[in-house]
Amino acid sequence: MTSLGDLPIRDDLRGQKAYGAPQIDVPVQLNTNENPYGPSEALVRALGEGVAATAGTLNRYPDRDAVDLRAGLAAYLNHEAGVRLDTGRVWAANGSNEIILQILQAFGGPGRSALGFEPSYAMHPTISMVANTRWIDAFRDEDFGLEAQRAVAAIEEHRPDVVFLTSPNNPTGTALDHEAIKAVLSVAPGMVVVDEAYGEFRRSGTPSALELLPGNPRLIVTRTMSKAFALAGARLGYLAADPAVLEALLLVRLPYHLSSVTQAVARTALSFREELLGYVQELRATRDETVEWLRGEGFRVADSDANFILFGTFDDRDAVWRRMLDRGVLIRAVGPPQWLRVSVGTPAEMAAFRSALKESV
Amino acid sequence: MTSLGDLPIRDDLRGQKAYGAPQIDVPVQLNTNENPYGPSEALVRALGEGVAATAGTLNRYPDRDAVDLRAGLAAYLNHEAGVRLDTGRVWAANGSNEIILQILQAFGGPGRSALGFEPSYAMHPTISMVANTRWIDAFRDEDFGLEAQRAVAAIEEHRPDVVFLTSPNNPTGTALDHEAIKAVLSVAPGMVVVDEAYGEFRRSGTPSALELLPGNPRLIVTRTMSKAFALAGARLGYLAADPAVLEALLLVRLPYHLSSVTQAVARTALSFREELLGYVQELRATRDETVEWLRGEGFRVADSDANFILFGTFDDRDAVWRRMLDRGVLIRAVGPPQWLRVSVGTPAEMAAFRSALKESV
Repeated sequence: MTSLGDLPIRDDLRGQKAYGAPQIDVPVQLNTNENPYGPSEALVRALGEGVAATAGTLNRYPDRDAVDLRAGLAAYLNHEAGVRLDTGRVWAANGSNEIILQILQAFGGPGRSALGFEPSYAMHPTISMVANTRWIDAFRDEDFGLEAQRAVAAIEEHRPDVVFLTSPNNPTGTALDHEAIKAVLSVAPGMVVVDEAYGEFRRSGTPSALELLPGNPRLIVTRTMSKAFALAGARLGYLAADPAVLEALLLVRLPYHLSSVTQAVARTALSFREELLGYVQELRATRDETVEWLRGEGFRVADSDANFILFGTFDDRDAVWRRMLDRGVLIRAVGPPQWLRVSVGTPAEMAAFRSALKESV
Repeated sequence: MTSLGDLPIRDDLRGQKAYGAPQIDVPVQLNTNENPYGPSEALVRALGEGVAATAGTLNRYPDRDAVDLRAGLAAYLNHEAGVRLDTGRVWAANGSNEIILQILQAFGGPGRSALGFEPSYAMHPTISMVANTRWIDAFRDEDFGLEAQRAVAAIEEHRPDVVFLTSPNNPTGTALDHEAIKAVLSVAPGMVVVDEAYGEFRRSGTPSALELLPGNPRLIVTRTMSKAFALAGARLGYLAADPAVLEALLLVRLPYHLSSVTQAVARTALSFREELLGYVQELRATRDETVEWLRGEGFRVADSDANFILFGTFDDRDAVWRRMLDRGVLIRAVGPPQWLRVSVGTPAEMAAFRSALKESV
């Protein structure tokens, strides 16, 4: 039998392990920041009809530039963040993972580097490795925020070609203010990516980096339909940026990367915006209640602008994680060593979380 | 306004043009080797129902490893090519473009090279560039075939890390025999990819490289549902290889790369195998008739095992292409300079092609 080591894989891949949260089937899944509210019956029906409407021409290649979908995403962003974007400033791909890959293929790559502030989203360094881009770890503040002066110092020291800022940050939930992002933009020699995968969950008063796009052609703001639109299974990530950035991405995207079906599904979901964003409001309320409860129980809790909460601290977080799993509640041991992360579920799921946690510490 | 040149894109991308056949709306589209037979009403209905059945859980991430779909693809290959493959030897991605990218990310990349025999599929060098893999042009024989000894000489000269063989070849239609593939496997220092995107259209008696998989762990055979399954719009490419190759691809694939919807659509189409492969039979017959007609008219025609035909020769192929477009028939000026390529359409479309061609030369 041939083993992986017998094959001529790249040297930098030897000994690596494939990424992935364990997919364990338990009653209460609060480990991957999925939205617990599945599509309504009306949306399910509309999705089936939308796909059937496009299926008659599936023998033809898709619209290579997904123009209708991008127009819909631009209109949505304008509504959500109070900005003024058009189709020429919005790009879409198969999940924000592919968005990140395309950014690194165009602006990173061999001989170039990307920098992020840990603890943060594991996909940024992972996809940098896949895109042959040297990864540089910088660090967030003690409270998981990012003070402008610290960020500037890290960038001046390393001069990275791509900077990843995550806001709200995963796994800490922390959002950045405009000051930090502006400071980074003023010194970064290359592109600055603000990953707003959880943007819609930000507390009122927290700004979006979308507001900073005018006049900043090296700023890219990424978003996803996985979280607020409850479409993790449909894989639709997108970004907003200067039109020149889109020109660059056209050089590296795989032709016809986005299927006609994916385009139809995403367009249908956008037309159910009001329903889906209603659930976002519920999740924000459930999050704030859960943060309060955790603090009342004496836990340390990171401020959260996302649909998950980082809390601690535990001398042995893996033991707590395991005991909760034994009680049917799957959360995630991720981020700084003494902390755990729980995704915000339905009120019933959070009740199960609370009792499992009390029995597990 | 910011222009692309003002952005810090990679130096090797500067001055590049985005790939893409012109998307022109004309009555008879015979330029991108699409299957002219769209899904039947029954299949359209089943696709809508299949997506609706999965839509209720679209808030959850997809099966990261697409196990059910891969089992279905393995069963299909066993049926189509008379081989014995299981799920552990079949991998799927968003179009064969993403399959090619993943292969190059695992086995090519910086400091490594890939080689193909021109004229051949433009995506092999294009995606090599995106994957930072040096591309080496070798050449096919005068009749677009590939004599084993010539192939071996090219590989011994260049020692590429990845070899692309395309069979049936695009844009020439030429299939390779086992002798050439075996000779390449015996000397290639790295991976050997046989791109069989058009495999199902091969004439009877033409072998598939799938037969060579046992005992050849460095052989990868790629396929697509775009052509024989008439699903260009759904973006489903796949490959068959040793399980160790799949282990390597797991290190570079983007997690959750294949949406639940894409998996559902592809599974549904596989269940309509008989209907869809019936159209393949019709297209093979139409192809053979068209080849005969072209030869009868005095054209040079490359032997075709695909759903397209390369024919010539023309002193000014662009003028012929243009005159045919003026008559509502879009074909493709691609491949060697004096030749044109026509995709095989319905009998009515081929009648339009024949009269337009007679008026255009």
